[in-house]
Amino acid sequence: MEYYYYPDLSADIIKLTQNEFTHCVKTLHHRIGDKILLTDGKENLAEGEIVSVTKTECLITLLNRKEGKDFRNFSLHIAIAPTKNRERIEWFLEKSIEIGIEKVSFMICEHSERTHLDLDRLNRVAISAIKQSKTTLLPKMEILTFDELMTKYAWIDQQKFIAWCNPDSETSQLTSLLQPQEDVLLLIGPEGDFSSKEIQNAKNQHFKEVLLGNKRLRTETAGLYCCCAVALTNSFTALQAKH
Amino acid sequence: MEYYYYPDLSADIIKLTQNEFTHCVKTLHHRIGDKILLTDGKENLAEGEIVSVTKTECLITLLNRKEGKDFRNFSLHIAIAPTKNRERIEWFLEKSIEIGIEKVSFMICEHSERTHLDLDRLNRVAISAIKQSKTTLLPKMEILTFDELMTKYAWIDQQKFIAWCNPDSETSQLTSLLQPQEDVLLLIGPEGDFSSKEIQNAKNQHFKEVLLGNKRLRTETAGLYCCCAVALTNSFTALQAKH
Repeated sequence: MEYYYYPDLSADIIKLTQNEFTHCVKTLHHRIGDKILLTDGKENLAEGEIVSVTKTECLITLLNRKEGKDFRNFSLHIAIAPTKNRERIEWFLEKSIEIGIEKVSFMICEHSERTHLDLDRLNRVAISAIKQSKTTLLPKMEILTFDELMTKYAWIDQQKFIAWCNPDSETSQLTSLLQPQEDVLLLIGPEGDFSSKEIQNAKNQHFKEVLLGNKRLRTETAGLYCCCAVALTNSFTALQAKH
Repeated sequence: MEYYYYPDLSADIIKLTQNEFTHCVKTLHHRIGDKILLTDGKENLAEGEIVSVTKTECLITLLNRKEGKDFRNFSLHIAIAPTKNRERIEWFLEKSIEIGIEKVSFMICEHSERTHLDLDRLNRVAISAIKQSKTTLLPKMEILTFDELMTKYAWIDQQKFIAWCNPDSETSQLTSLLQPQEDVLLLIGPEGDFSSKEIQNAKNQHFKEVLLGNKRLRTETAGLYCCCAVALTNSFTALQAKH
């Protein structure tokens, strides 16, 4: 059964938003009495029944509520520079949600060619991604500058990594440093890479430099590689624990 | 230094193809005496020097040849159904090359909504991806039907997996079955999933059913998830061997 998004599932009766109304009634022709599933993007899921449909709105009574199955006992926070090409960063957002991510900071860096992003649009992309991949977790999203990010998060006690096109062959692979079951903050720079000032700043704040494999990855690919590395590191550990 | 593609680096002097000529001379304004790097997409790299430039062509003498660093002692072969949306499968191709893949079969299945693909166009996408990610390995590509694929590859002794939206909770995760340092063939179905006939057929040929994480992934995301799983499984094992 397909998912619909509604930000607050605490009420007994809700009115579908315009997008969800179109999807549910216009596209899929649901009618009174039909049951649908809704998520608030906060790991909650509810079964709802359509109690009223007009040309413009659809009312749902919420029946059983349950927790989604997407909870991870750690949080992956990726701060990534918007790509010059808007589609590439939207693509990253869609894919990272499919693989698993708790928070995305769109980070404007010194070398960023794109300094403006439409957060509402990104939110629509994210909502359609959670519906498509049937996950109940809508990552928190924000737009800020590199310096704002440092002020806001650098002091927090968690694994902190910065990935850049590092010429130093001594640099470790992310996968060799990544600790499972622990929160992670990962910084991924723009096409023009981080400035040396930004890299120094991050190192001063105890961000560890890491390599992402042995190839040069595009910004959005680097981001997805990190999502997979974190998901898989934790699944490998779960397996080792089992055996 | 950026990479250029030329299919055969055995000659002493080569003439850049039209695309590469445009990139090298028109876009980057290289002139006589400039040195460039070329790859044949077969894991070879050569340094070349521009010896002649006209309005329409550019001749290069090949100097030092060396092996690229992209050799893996195993081969990842993904057979994936073309997505309805052409951009999504091209996106998969670009990303899988960035992460690492040896062979891609575009597989037409019973439920495939897209049954035609432009292999020349995919080849151009792949070449620009190896140049972008500075890899020397251009994956082998082909288009065939599910049945043709079975006839051609099912008998080969390697790890064989089929990923589909399996309701059976007993099914293992890919990461729990994947053996490092061994060749892999992975089948990924279309939006409409494999038909039960195809799944049975694959199981008869000893393909193991696997889950890719715990979410429902789009076809192209499933493909990339597999590339990352194989790359990371092997890098984890390399690490464990080291310690």
